[in-house]
Amino acid sequence: MYLCAMNCEIITIGDELLIGQVIDTNSAYIANRLNEIGIRVTRRTAVGDVPDDMINVLSDASLRASVILMTGGLGPTKDDKTKDVLCDYFGTSLTFNESSFKDLEELFKTRGREMTELNRSQAELPDNCIALQNKLGTAPGMWFDHNDKIYISLPGVPYEMENLMKEQVLPRLKERFKLEAVFHRTIQTTGLAESVLADRIREWESALPPCFKLAYLPAPGIVRLRLTGEGKTYDELKALSEKCIADLRELIGDQIFGYDDERLPEVIGKLLKSQNQTVSVAESCSGGYLAHLITSIAGSSEYFKGGIVPYDNSFKTKLLSVDKELILTKGAVSEEVVIEMARNCRKLFDTDYALSISGIAGPGGATPEKSVGLVWMAIATRDKVQARKFQFGKNRTLNITLTANSALELLRREILGLLNAN
Amino acid sequence: MYLCAMNCEIITIGDELLIGQVIDTNSAYIANRLNEIGIRVTRRTAVGDVPDDMINVLSDASLRASVILMTGGLGPTKDDKTKDVLCDYFGTSLTFNESSFKDLEELFKTRGREMTELNRSQAELPDNCIALQNKLGTAPGMWFDHNDKIYISLPGVPYEMENLMKEQVLPRLKERFKLEAVFHRTIQTTGLAESVLADRIREWESALPPCFKLAYLPAPGIVRLRLTGEGKTYDELKALSEKCIADLRELIGDQIFGYDDERLPEVIGKLLKSQNQTVSVAESCSGGYLAHLITSIAGSSEYFKGGIVPYDNSFKTKLLSVDKELILTKGAVSEEVVIEMARNCRKLFDTDYALSISGIAGPGGATPEKSVGLVWMAIATRDKVQARKFQFGKNRTLNITLTANSALELLRREILGLLNAN
Repeated sequence: MYLCAMNCEIITIGDELLIGQVIDTNSAYIANRLNEIGIRVTRRTAVGDVPDDMINVLSDASLRASVILMTGGLGPTKDDKTKDVLCDYFGTSLTFNESSFKDLEELFKTRGREMTELNRSQAELPDNCIALQNKLGTAPGMWFDHNDKIYISLPGVPYEMENLMKEQVLPRLKERFKLEAVFHRTIQTTGLAESVLADRIREWESALPPCFKLAYLPAPGIVRLRLTGEGKTYDELKALSEKCIADLRELIGDQIFGYDDERLPEVIGKLLKSQNQTVSVAESCSGGYLAHLITSIAGSSEYFKGGIVPYDNSFKTKLLSVDKELILTKGAVSEEVVIEMARNCRKLFDTDYALSISGIAGPGGATPEKSVGLVWMAIATRDKVQARKFQFGKNRTLNITLTANSALELLRREILGLLNAN
Repeated sequence: MYLCAMNCEIITIGDELLIGQVIDTNSAYIANRLNEIGIRVTRRTAVGDVPDDMINVLSDASLRASVILMTGGLGPTKDDKTKDVLCDYFGTSLTFNESSFKDLEELFKTRGREMTELNRSQAELPDNCIALQNKLGTAPGMWFDHNDKIYISLPGVPYEMENLMKEQVLPRLKERFKLEAVFHRTIQTTGLAESVLADRIREWESALPPCFKLAYLPAPGIVRLRLTGEGKTYDELKALSEKCIADLRELIGDQIFGYDDERLPEVIGKLLKSQNQTVSVAESCSGGYLAHLITSIAGSSEYFKGGIVPYDNSFKTKLLSVDKELILTKGAVSEEVVIEMARNCRKLFDTDYALSISGIAGPGGATPEKSVGLVWMAIATRDKVQARKFQFGKNRTLNITLTANSALELLRREILGLLNAN
């Protein structure tokens, strides 16, 4: 039998979430995957390892949602209380689960490790659950079908939870529910502040069909526009959204760099691959973060040849042949120096493009003329070099992020021939 | 008048949190800062931009908590509904706030930008609030003192929220409440799996004074132990915890790399600075992430000279003088190659230490003999080079993280003379 009214509440369990020691990345992952199959997350609650609070949240959520998905509290140690709480909640008790124990034995065999007594206890599960095999860790997931609601309990370790979602939870949910269409499309933009962007697309926004809702999601250097459609079939929503986005491209086409979860390094990777081109980097104040963003993409070895992080100025000379006198007279953070860095980096790695960066990430390093947040960067191609100056803020982490994102955007614009237009 | 019973619920607002588009880093930051001043976060709830849901969550939270702190929904655009909801909730209405408007004028003057009509509307606030100046953005924070509960509304942009917390919210909370002691100490360990660690310290854990609670927080390559004390004065809890931790060091001293929020790159930075030593890196499969972790620390230019990312194998030869024949016969991912990379990197940058990395991050790049997740790394000092082999898993992102963390740990052990002991 199918259940209807598909909404889910996520409950994350663990004191570490409440004292701020752990950033909850699990909820975002879970929400994304559920959305894709048409289950809406309507609330997320985090509670500590406190049995009474856990029971309360479970009871409240069960009044509103058809799926209740919990993560955390399944470890082998004393502070993990989820299994006991679930037994209380369902009025059941822990029993030794044969199939889970076999899964555990298999896991330890693969890893060539001995099972401890604590690990063995992880095969004890509430007797009304279906055990979900955890191939990447020792805590099994659990599936409860109770009073026409589905309760799911997963471990809090992100890659274990993700594997369980993919292999066990999503297929079972699709089988259990008749799911309706929700359509999301995110448009990724860069180069316009949120309020300027909102002004620019105001009329377009007002003219959106009533089945669509628009949200602005700002991040450092990026504003994402999320279009959500409901109330029609998936195909109708998709077709309608394509028309809306085509109109939007007329207004801000140059600023749109991608769609949905596409990240800038991924977009650049696709562009470079499609043109059979290569890139290298010479980055000082971003300290390897630009190379990291580029190489975070699987397959980046096809177009990324390598990078230099000449953190100490002497290595701008030694590794990138930047004239020592130039650094002395113009300063390491200068147009002239980043131009030399980019030109020589491109030659060194023999790439189609090279990006160079020199700046003051802070908090130290400022001079009377050059304040924290000043960043020069350049892009070299086979026939020219262009430099750009940025003045970011005082926060080191944010400056590193903004610097690397701006360099990627510089590369995107150069590849697409948009650089001189702006 | 002081209020008592200091607990806080955090409410984060925005559809983006429920469809998984944004990872909620704000809650962790807020919880950390509140904990430091003795306010416990007892629940966190995320709801969408849905007025009814927002009102329900506010009402429920006000039954349990003395402080209700909201973030999000304050932008200038249509999807932002927090101010209207707060007016409904308190039975007040929006009025033009002079002091907020002056703050806005100042902000736009500094940035040399024109204020739009949308920005001007951001100075309209519920008439029962105290406006909190947002120096980094256009949405002011709000403070409500209502029926002996404090309600705080902050923008969702992380650095804006953080600045408001520091400059406005925390000082006001300290003034408004009489705060009791909560003591946290986190012990950061590496090198032991959670269950092995738990076995090793079982007796110590059982003998902890009853005012302490212990939690295990696993992350890639790291397990943090969090000790939380309550029910005594701060100084008593601190003294007791120091004794407990001294006992713990007897059991797992080599595995403890730091305390509280200290990250491995920070610990290494302190060690290098204290010994006036320097480091450089040559990293292939980690693609700049190791250099990024090292340079994420303010002041790292004192000890980090630079790095090479020889992503294409030819640059292992060209930049690091690794014998081409060696790469052909042993493979780029081999003990021999990382040893040469580390030795030559150290010479090139003339540093006390050099780390080298070569591996298969995946998903591509595996051979019949070498599977995805195989990583070789080496550390060179002025008189020797030592290599280590790791076999991580199939996940590219996780492999990059584990690789960089393992390299940092290799460096820590070398600096402390622990490397040969293990």
